[in-house]
Amino acid sequence: MGASSWLDIPKGSHFSLANLPFGIITTPRSGERHAAVAIGNLVLDLHEFALHQGFSGLEGFTPSHIATFSKPALNDFAALGQDVHRKVRRYLQDIFAEETPFPALLKHSVEAQRACLFQQDQVKMHLPMKIGGYTDFFAGKNHAYNCGCIFRDPAKALQPNYLHLPVAYNSRASSVVVSSTDVRRPLGQFLRSPSDTRPSFGPCRRLDIELELGALLCKGNELGEPIDVNEAEQHIFGFVCLNDWSARDIQQWEAVPLGPFCAKTFASTISPWVVLKDALEPFHVQGIPNETELHPYLQETRKENVYDINLEVELRAPNGESAILSRTNARNLVFSFAQMLAHHTVGGCPLEVGDLIGSGTISGTEPGTLGSFLEASNGGKKSFHLSATIRRTFLEDGDSVVIRGWCGDDEANLVGFGECSGTILPSIKPSWI
Amino acid sequence: MGASSWLDIPKGSHFSLANLPFGIITTPRSGERHAAVAIGNLVLDLHEFALHQGFSGLEGFTPSHIATFSKPALNDFAALGQDVHRKVRRYLQDIFAEETPFPALLKHSVEAQRACLFQQDQVKMHLPMKIGGYTDFFAGKNHAYNCGCIFRDPAKALQPNYLHLPVAYNSRASSVVVSSTDVRRPLGQFLRSPSDTRPSFGPCRRLDIELELGALLCKGNELGEPIDVNEAEQHIFGFVCLNDWSARDIQQWEAVPLGPFCAKTFASTISPWVVLKDALEPFHVQGIPNETELHPYLQETRKENVYDINLEVELRAPNGESAILSRTNARNLVFSFAQMLAHHTVGGCPLEVGDLIGSGTISGTEPGTLGSFLEASNGGKKSFHLSATIRRTFLEDGDSVVIRGWCGDDEANLVGFGECSGTILPSIKPSWI
Repeated sequence: MGASSWLDIPKGSHFSLANLPFGIITTPRSGERHAAVAIGNLVLDLHEFALHQGFSGLEGFTPSHIATFSKPALNDFAALGQDVHRKVRRYLQDIFAEETPFPALLKHSVEAQRACLFQQDQVKMHLPMKIGGYTDFFAGKNHAYNCGCIFRDPAKALQPNYLHLPVAYNSRASSVVVSSTDVRRPLGQFLRSPSDTRPSFGPCRRLDIELELGALLCKGNELGEPIDVNEAEQHIFGFVCLNDWSARDIQQWEAVPLGPFCAKTFASTISPWVVLKDALEPFHVQGIPNETELHPYLQETRKENVYDINLEVELRAPNGESAILSRTNARNLVFSFAQMLAHHTVGGCPLEVGDLIGSGTISGTEPGTLGSFLEASNGGKKSFHLSATIRRTFLEDGDSVVIRGWCGDDEANLVGFGECSGTILPSIKPSWI
Repeated sequence: MGASSWLDIPKGSHFSLANLPFGIITTPRSGERHAAVAIGNLVLDLHEFALHQGFSGLEGFTPSHIATFSKPALNDFAALGQDVHRKVRRYLQDIFAEETPFPALLKHSVEAQRACLFQQDQVKMHLPMKIGGYTDFFAGKNHAYNCGCIFRDPAKALQPNYLHLPVAYNSRASSVVVSSTDVRRPLGQFLRSPSDTRPSFGPCRRLDIELELGALLCKGNELGEPIDVNEAEQHIFGFVCLNDWSARDIQQWEAVPLGPFCAKTFASTISPWVVLKDALEPFHVQGIPNETELHPYLQETRKENVYDINLEVELRAPNGESAILSRTNARNLVFSFAQMLAHHTVGGCPLEVGDLIGSGTISGTEPGTLGSFLEASNGGKKSFHLSATIRRTFLEDGDSVVIRGWCGDDEANLVGFGECSGTILPSIKPSWI
């Protein structure tokens, strides 16, 4: 890319013409959820655009294709497949291009612009897809290593299985929320000290984030039919930033022997705009090397199988100040999403359009590059300064966390995710508890 | 109950007039999925029954209520709430009663009978609900103890958390299948011996069952709003038998540190008929005593909080012979479904209509009462005779497993679940693996 637009796209916008991510909006004019794309500070309502014959220049795009933009989630559009996503994204790039071949459809139609374009701060964002299954992987090797050092010791930090397969667990799709949704501090059981013989009950005392990348699927597989690792990318609609909020004290008490449960099901926040797989194509890089000889079902031909995405976590304290908790990069994965999908399905598990696949927490190796408070506080053992006035071990009530992700360094052509944010509300104890 | 029917209901039928479970069928006359109830060897197609004015005697039952019977899953009917389920079930009991107040609607209408009643072996059963979330608990204390003895030692068999909360993990809703669906032996990674440093890959060598009871929900809760343990039963539509097929070797290798994943997502089979909560009301009993002082959110007023359901597991070998693996009872739970729902939501996790909640494996304490091969073979250490000719450690290709559950001992008034069955097919290795 590099084309400019007839629209004024501010430099540094995550939503350059090279991006055009898809989301679900309601507007000041309609409470019905519709598909939209983001461009600069604006969004194009695709339902309205279709009503204004906006897709009349897109050959082979049928009324049933167009109808997917009027649905309250992107699942039906996603299910049309990557060839269609590609054609639509390229067409919309043409629509917005300075030298657009279709000036009558939007550039020169004030009426269509009034009907279809909204300022981003005027629209409300919703979950982009109806998410049927949410699986969270653990492919951030630095995070896995750091956790292993905290809970065991550096010599045995990684479990024996870790480099042989992408470790994962099924999480809870119903608690996935869209950015800006407040997060209530969960109640639960935990030990106040390791010597306790009886659990305490109350508000989580070790509330944490997990900085992750999430993939949303556009294609499933049948029960009993594994996905070929070298065809797995065809199943990916696009990506979002993901904050997998975690209650560390609840997790530590409950997770033996079947894994995390309540600690991970009170909220998982995703950014609202789905950055299409195509838009990330120029940013492929190699991930963390894995010297392990993998079984063939995990052997991927593509070596540059993860993405060079800058990631940043900002904490906004209740006093109004803010500081950066972490700056890192999504290349810090030891398994790719293709490998995750191949492993997920190798035993026959069916995936579905709309499923969310989390990468696992993404951390670098240095202070200031860590994707969780658990790591930054060395397992809660020491508080740390985020700024001169913000000191934390874990999250406090009123804290807001904002995750941002973006590719590229040409400020006119960023491919970014926007914000994935949430604010911690204090626990509420029902009367009967 | 005790009323007799104008229909000929064979003695010993699971589907007496005291039961009337709900399911989803297709019939020789229609490939559209509709709601039905089972009675004796027959099923009543509720969509056809409604077309024949069958619900004209049910006061306050509106066209929108009736329309729920024409849906391909019971979710919309379930969402009408327990008062409606109760009214409909009682009305249908009246319809089928010997002295029915509504003889014209079915008893004396040969035309309606021809249109609405089918032999059970003529209809095809489908998943009764669209299952959004599937959570599997671990509340069968004897099973948890037996597993602890196998993997650790009897002195520390139960983990410290076990009696304080109903341990659970999120499983995979998309791999839940209806009874009679074949189960493909999964491929996966495992260690052939504990001293292996590199995992093997291939067909699971320790394929197992888990005998469970499943609850299907008719009412959800909002994110952040826990369910009161003493109101939790209002969320339960009804119950099914559940076989949570498990790949023990895959599980043992993959489950550290985040719990079972591929080992549990190749198939979980449920019986097709949902036995309504009301139908089980006469069979409440106390479960396994728990001397632990529970936190208030798990303190249930009702002491008889589990069900007296006879459970039986039959193995049919490929040679045509069959034998009973296990006879036990669903009272072998240390937490009730109400407690499971209260714990599931205490941190704020939202549940939804159609969610499936598994009890965990139900075992007694004696040989012949165990709900898994893992227990019966002492962790795979010894094979055992099921009959003179059937000897097993784990499941073999071609084996069929049939789970049955029923309440009561009056053969004219059984409340049963029918069968929950599946046959093991050999693995298929795709060319690219």
